Amino acid sequence: MRALFPALAEGSEVYLDSAATTQKPLPVIETIRAYHGSRTANVGRGGYPWAAELTARLGEIRAHTAEFLGAAHPDEIVFTGGATAALNAVALSWGLANLRDGDEILYSPTDHESNVLPWLHLRGLLARFGRHIVLVPYASTVDGRADTADIRAKLTPRTRLVTVSHVHHVFGACSTLAQVREALEPHVLLCFDCSQSGGHIPVDVVALRADFAILAGHKMFGAPGTGVLYCARRVHEQLDPFLPGGNSGVAVDDSGLIRAGMPELLEGGTPNIPGILALGSALEVLDEFGVEEIAAHNRDLTLRLIDGLRGVPGLDFLPGPAYGAGGVGYGIVSFTVEGIAAADLGFVLGEFGFLVRAGAQCLPHRADEPGPDAIRVSTHIYNTAEEIDRFVACVATIAREAR
Amino acid sequence: MRALFPALAEGSEVYLDSAATTQKPLPVIETIRAYHGSRTANVGRGGYPWAAELTARLGEIRAHTAEFLGAAHPDEIVFTGGATAALNAVALSWGLANLRDGDEILYSPTDHESNVLPWLHLRGLLARFGRHIVLVPYASTVDGRADTADIRAKLTPRTRLVTVSHVHHVFGACSTLAQVREALEPHVLLCFDCSQSGGHIPVDVVALRADFAILAGHKMFGAPGTGVLYCARRVHEQLDPFLPGGNSGVAVDDSGLIRAGMPELLEGGTPNIPGILALGSALEVLDEFGVEEIAAHNRDLTLRLIDGLRGVPGLDFLPGPAYGAGGVGYGIVSFTVEGIAAADLGFVLGEFGFLVRAGAQCLPHRADEPGPDAIRVSTHIYNTAEEIDRFVACVATIAREAR
Repeated sequence: MRALFPALAEGSEVYLDSAATTQKPLPVIETIRAYHGSRTANVGRGGYPWAAELTARLGEIRAHTAEFLGAAHPDEIVFTGGATAALNAVALSWGLANLRDGDEILYSPTDHESNVLPWLHLRGLLARFGRHIVLVPYASTVDGRADTADIRAKLTPRTRLVTVSHVHHVFGACSTLAQVREALEPHVLLCFDCSQSGGHIPVDVVALRADFAILAGHKMFGAPGTGVLYCARRVHEQLDPFLPGGNSGVAVDDSGLIRAGMPELLEGGTPNIPGILALGSALEVLDEFGVEEIAAHNRDLTLRLIDGLRGVPGLDFLPGPAYGAGGVGYGIVSFTVEGIAAADLGFVLGEFGFLVRAGAQCLPHRADEPGPDAIRVSTHIYNTAEEIDRFVACVATIAREAR
Repeated sequence: MRALFPALAEGSEVYLDSAATTQKPLPVIETIRAYHGSRTANVGRGGYPWAAELTARLGEIRAHTAEFLGAAHPDEIVFTGGATAALNAVALSWGLANLRDGDEILYSPTDHESNVLPWLHLRGLLARFGRHIVLVPYASTVDGRADTADIRAKLTPRTRLVTVSHVHHVFGACSTLAQVREALEPHVLLCFDCSQSGGHIPVDVVALRADFAILAGHKMFGAPGTGVLYCARRVHEQLDPFLPGGNSGVAVDDSGLIRAGMPELLEGGTPNIPGILALGSALEVLDEFGVEEIAAHNRDLTLRLIDGLRGVPGLDFLPGPAYGAGGVGYGIVSFTVEGIAAADLGFVLGEFGFLVRAGAQCLPHRADEPGPDAIRVSTHIYNTAEEIDRFVACVATIAREAR
């Protein structure tokens, strides 16, 4: 199976940074090469076979993506330039058009910057025009999940949206908001950033009652520059265009733009054709592995990692499954070691061939303060128990020598 | 040289749709494959060599792009998800933040949708908040250029921006606004959409006095999903963030976002890494061919095409160099043939192996009217005089049989 990922077959490095981007399987690499090397064309425009076949293939991938997410309709699937663009699309295409003075958005200030900064930016844009929305921060639990009791306590008649990471990119905990959903008025929308759950655990947008859900293609065996934005049909009529241009679902009348159909409404310009084709092949690879099997593999590796690291002197886990009841894990564990800056620890681990993320981890931080400083380990289907054991041994050695 | 473009070596088709997307040369294909197949990582984050080397390479490509455009500073180069995203970035990051009631933007209603719809969308967004800007349409000349006399006549003290296509995507004419620049107050900004000129003719943003200039990677031998937005340093302080997220040039303070440096300010999230690497290789290929040589080749093919098509019965050129003083051409010629719908003509040409664009051509059109209907032929360095002659003969045969 590791032979499917040529970058891993090359050297002796142990890749433990899949939450930053996954390695790419051969079918994805070959799909991208084939697009650039054979019958290259644009989509949605030319009528000749090179172009028409690509346009049809993108339609198939849209349908496959819908199926992958449990979405009922392919027109609920928007392709964007990435997960960050998709979250900003929710802020700009929905938020800018629909939020009124005093409306509230619930968000987690310890979420990924891409699920924090778009809302801060939206608030600033609206304030520029005298419209003041309120960003209400909610807490996380010690095991890294969204604190649903805190969210419930903070719901008000002015709450319009609750945004959450399905799996947190540093804490590695899963939030489904199951305990919140029953308390929600129908007009309160839910936005799930599934960048770290897509391709890792089953994602069912209907079960999540998601109005918006976001995937990052490059974090699920696809290519950078490709995001997916699921928009439930019930919110379609609330949406403004997003970055309109060639082939977007808008036309012109005397007063300006008029809206046309989804998903084109949010998809102006030439899309990232090779990226979407890569996503199509990635979904096929994921189907073949089975997302349930991937989830079980990552859970096993996570539990092994937590168990192993528990014995390391001076090691402190960041919030996450290490503090939970046990038995859950999603392939992400973050920690610090007393007396060693994360950058130094990351560097030394790198010298030993372990590729991990060290530093601020895309967590929002104040301009006048350094960001959080930790090591994040993230696994995927291509990692092995033996790699985890060697990694734990290496961390333990470094930690002992630092004392 | 054609062997450098594997898609063209495969079959007998004659690719005449380079204005939609260019074919890809081997070094670009190999660069993309190498990224996905070897030492795959994210950029701007991980400190280990796989990631750090990619981050450094993206910096080199930013510097090369600046040099390619004659820009003085790499921090004037922003990578976006495409040319459409780049034009929308100008509208949202500059326009939304800076335009006041009554301000005016001069634009061409016969420009590409991606240089029209972002401005209509911006006008609608501002109107939603009670701020009314005016979009002032300017005319085109019969040979397809921006009518500089009309632009000069329409400049007012409220003019804030003039936007233009450097080379028009259907008319194939080049507008430099040389006759307008001297009349401009320093605060009037110029935005050049160079999607069809980049890689086709030399583009010098300083000579153009451009404040903004836009390139489409996939129209200059690179990959879809990659755009370039040149922002002159003199406008940096007027810019708001664009799609902020991970690694964007913003931080948080008590009041919300604070701006940090360019180009990160407009670049949130994981960029299209393979697309930017592809752009880097594309620039190297362009340097090797020489943009002046490419321009001369396309000019020769364009003149040959115009000369040949002039004799075809019932053929009418759309505006463009066919109506000019002669001697200029930029690889794009559009026409109609009396009695044959463009879609039908395009289909028949496709049957004979000539791949051209037929139909609405991404020109803006009213919702209640069909778009313009024409054939567009576009050439590049890999096309030959012999292909042009065969194409002309084929059009002539079809046109005669249709009479």
